[in-house]
Amino acid sequence: MAKDFYGDLQLGILGGGQLGRMLIQEAINFNVNIHILDPDKHAPCRNLCNRFVNGALNDFDTVYAFGKGLDMLTIEIEKVNVDALEKLEEEGVLVYPQSRIIRLIQDKGLQKQFFKQNDIPTAPFQLISSKENLATASLSLPYIQKLRKDGYDGRGVKKIVTESDVATAFEAPSLIEQWVDFEKELAIIVSRNENGEVATFPCVEMEFNPEANLVEFLISPSTLPFEIQQRAELLAKKIAEDLQIIGLLAVELFLTKDGQLLVNELAPRPHNSGHQSIEGNFTSQFAQHLRAIFNLPPGNTATRSNAVMVNLLGEAGHEGLARYEGIEDVLAMEGVYLHLYGKKYTKPFRKMGHVCIINEDRETAIRIARSVQQTIRVVT
Amino acid sequence: MAKDFYGDLQLGILGGGQLGRMLIQEAINFNVNIHILDPDKHAPCRNLCNRFVNGALNDFDTVYAFGKGLDMLTIEIEKVNVDALEKLEEEGVLVYPQSRIIRLIQDKGLQKQFFKQNDIPTAPFQLISSKENLATASLSLPYIQKLRKDGYDGRGVKKIVTESDVATAFEAPSLIEQWVDFEKELAIIVSRNENGEVATFPCVEMEFNPEANLVEFLISPSTLPFEIQQRAELLAKKIAEDLQIIGLLAVELFLTKDGQLLVNELAPRPHNSGHQSIEGNFTSQFAQHLRAIFNLPPGNTATRSNAVMVNLLGEAGHEGLARYEGIEDVLAMEGVYLHLYGKKYTKPFRKMGHVCIINEDRETAIRIARSVQQTIRVVT
Repeated sequence: MAKDFYGDLQLGILGGGQLGRMLIQEAINFNVNIHILDPDKHAPCRNLCNRFVNGALNDFDTVYAFGKGLDMLTIEIEKVNVDALEKLEEEGVLVYPQSRIIRLIQDKGLQKQFFKQNDIPTAPFQLISSKENLATASLSLPYIQKLRKDGYDGRGVKKIVTESDVATAFEAPSLIEQWVDFEKELAIIVSRNENGEVATFPCVEMEFNPEANLVEFLISPSTLPFEIQQRAELLAKKIAEDLQIIGLLAVELFLTKDGQLLVNELAPRPHNSGHQSIEGNFTSQFAQHLRAIFNLPPGNTATRSNAVMVNLLGEAGHEGLARYEGIEDVLAMEGVYLHLYGKKYTKPFRKMGHVCIINEDRETAIRIARSVQQTIRVVT
Repeated sequence: MAKDFYGDLQLGILGGGQLGRMLIQEAINFNVNIHILDPDKHAPCRNLCNRFVNGALNDFDTVYAFGKGLDMLTIEIEKVNVDALEKLEEEGVLVYPQSRIIRLIQDKGLQKQFFKQNDIPTAPFQLISSKENLATASLSLPYIQKLRKDGYDGRGVKKIVTESDVATAFEAPSLIEQWVDFEKELAIIVSRNENGEVATFPCVEMEFNPEANLVEFLISPSTLPFEIQQRAELLAKKIAEDLQIIGLLAVELFLTKDGQLLVNELAPRPHNSGHQSIEGNFTSQFAQHLRAIFNLPPGNTATRSNAVMVNLLGEAGHEGLARYEGIEDVLAMEGVYLHLYGKKYTKPFRKMGHVCIINEDRETAIRIARSVQQTIRVVT
C-alpha cells in the first residue's frame, strides 16, 4: 500500500471493545481515521473514533455497508460476517487479516484440520455433527468438547470426563479433543506484513481462573528452557507463513508433561495474552498489528522488563453499573499500570480492565501482581 | 475528590491540540469522559472525545458554557479566558491548574514578579508599558523584549541588540529581560496533587532551532553534574509549592556560563519538553498530570532509557494539506517511536508530530535522532 497514507487512511475495525480501544490508543500516533462497528451502543470505542456504527457484526448488509468506501478493515473479534468481508475484499478494500483466514479460524473444526494438513502439532481430535456421535467416539475419556463456531472466552467448551457427562454435551456441530494433561499454557504472538516480514514476541506463560476459564494472570517472558521457547517461536512463524496472514496472530500452546508443544487455538488479532507488551516490550502488540497491516517494518519485540498482566474481571455476584475499588492503593504500588476498558456495566467475570506490573525482578513482579489481585475489585 | 469516579467523571480540556491528544491517549486508561473546546474545527482531538465544542478559548461565554456542568477542567494551553474559569471554580467545578495560576502565568510580567517575590532566581528584568520606555531602560543592551501576554511558541519575543533595534520593538505592555549568555537550556517537570505530594521528573536538556525558536531536539536525562540537577529539582519543587499548584508544571531554566540556574518560564500543563517521558520514563508526563489532578499518588518518574525527542516541524516553504516523507525508513530504525498529531494542514515550523528515540547508549540515541531528522519531512 501507499506509504504516504498518514492522515488519509480510513480504517474500519469490526468490534469496538477493549482490543479496539487499545488499538485506537496506538493508531492515534499514525493519524489514521478510525471507523468502528459494534452491536453495543455503549461499546468502549464509541467516543474514540471518527465514525461509530451501532450494528450487528454477523449481519451481511451491516458489515458490507460499514466497510464500503473504507480503505482497510481489521477485526478485534473473529465472530463477524465473513461473506461481507469477502465481497469487500473483491471490491478492493484491504481486509487484514484476510477473510479466508477469519473464515478458517471461526470454525474450530477447520482450524484443527488446518493444523493436521500442515503438520502443526495439536491434540488428537474428531469432528462430530451431533451428540449421538459421542457414543462411538474414537477418543477415550476424558476429552473436551468444543463448539465449532461461536465459542468465546471460555463459552462453548465442555469437559467430558465420564460416560454420564455425555448426556450434558452440546447438541451442535463440534469437535472433541483429547484432554491434554499439560504442564503449562503458553502463548506467542507473531506478526507478518505484506512484504512477508515475520516477527515473534517472546513466549509468555498463562495462568487461568479455573472457574471463569479466562486468563487471569500472565507472566512475561517465559522462563522455560531456551530450546522449548525456540521451538514455540518457530512453530508460530511457520503458522503465520502457512496462513500467509497479514496482521497479528496469537498462538496458544500447551506444553505437555512429556515436553511436547501442542497448538491449542489461534486468534488472528491482538489478544489478551499480549496486553503486557504495552509496558513490558519495546513494541506493543497493538503497534505491531498496525505496522503489519500498514506494511511497515516490524518493531522490536524484545522484552523491556519482566511483566505480569492481571485481568480485572467483574466480581462474582455483581451485575450492573460498574464501580472500581482499590484503584488508589494499586496505583501507589511500584511499577503498576492501570488499563480500564470503559465498560459501563459489569457482570461476573466480564473483562473490565487489566493491570500490568513491571519489575526488574520477576518474583517481585509476581508478588505485586498477587497484591493487586487482592486489592482491586470491580463491583456494583 | 471521590476516589470511585472512574467512568463517571466529566473532564473538560481547554484546547484540543497535540497535548490534549496525548492526554486523551492516557485518560482512556482511566475511563474518563472527555470534553474538548478548541477554535479549530479540525483540531487533533476532535474525534477522540465524548463532546467536541468548536469555539473560542478566550471568550468568556464560550468557556463558561463549555465548563458548566463538568466535574473538572484542565488546560493544554494557557491562553484561555480565566474570568470564566474563576466563575466556574466558584460554582464548584474543579479547575486544575487553578484559575489564579493560569492568570499569573498568562502574564509574563506577573510571572517575573512572582519569581522576584519568592526568591526564585531569574534574569534581571523591567516591566514597560510602551516602546518609549525603552529609551530610559535600566537594563543594558542586549536584552530580550517579551510581550506580557499572548506570546507563544517563539512568537512575541524579540532580541534587542543595538539602539537601532529599539525602533522595531513591540508597541505593547511587555517586559525586557537581560540577555542571558547561557550554557544550556534545561527543563524539569514537576507535579503536585491535592494531598500535597510533589514529584519531579529528571532534568532534560534542550536544543533549539534558532530559526523557528522552537525546541527541536531534547535529550533525557541530562548529564550535567548531580549537584546542578539537584538544585534544579529543588527549585522546581519550591515553585510548585510556592504556587500550591494542582497538576503538572513545566519549569524552563537557563544554566549560565558561571553555573547559575535562572528560571526562564513556567507552563502549568504537559509540555513539549516532556514528550520523551512516554517511552523514556516509567511514568509519562500525561499520566502524571492525570494522577495529579485526580489526587492519585504520583507515578515513578525515573528514567527508563536514554531518550531523545525530535519535533517534526512543517518544512519551510510548504503550506497546505500535510504529507509525510520518510516514515517507513524512520520506523525501520532502532528504538524509534512515532507520534503524529493528526493535523490536516502543515505550515512552516508548525508542530506536526514528534519522534522519540530510546537507546541504552546515549550517543547512539543522539546519532539515530540526527538520522531521523534528516529522513523525515512534513511537506505538501
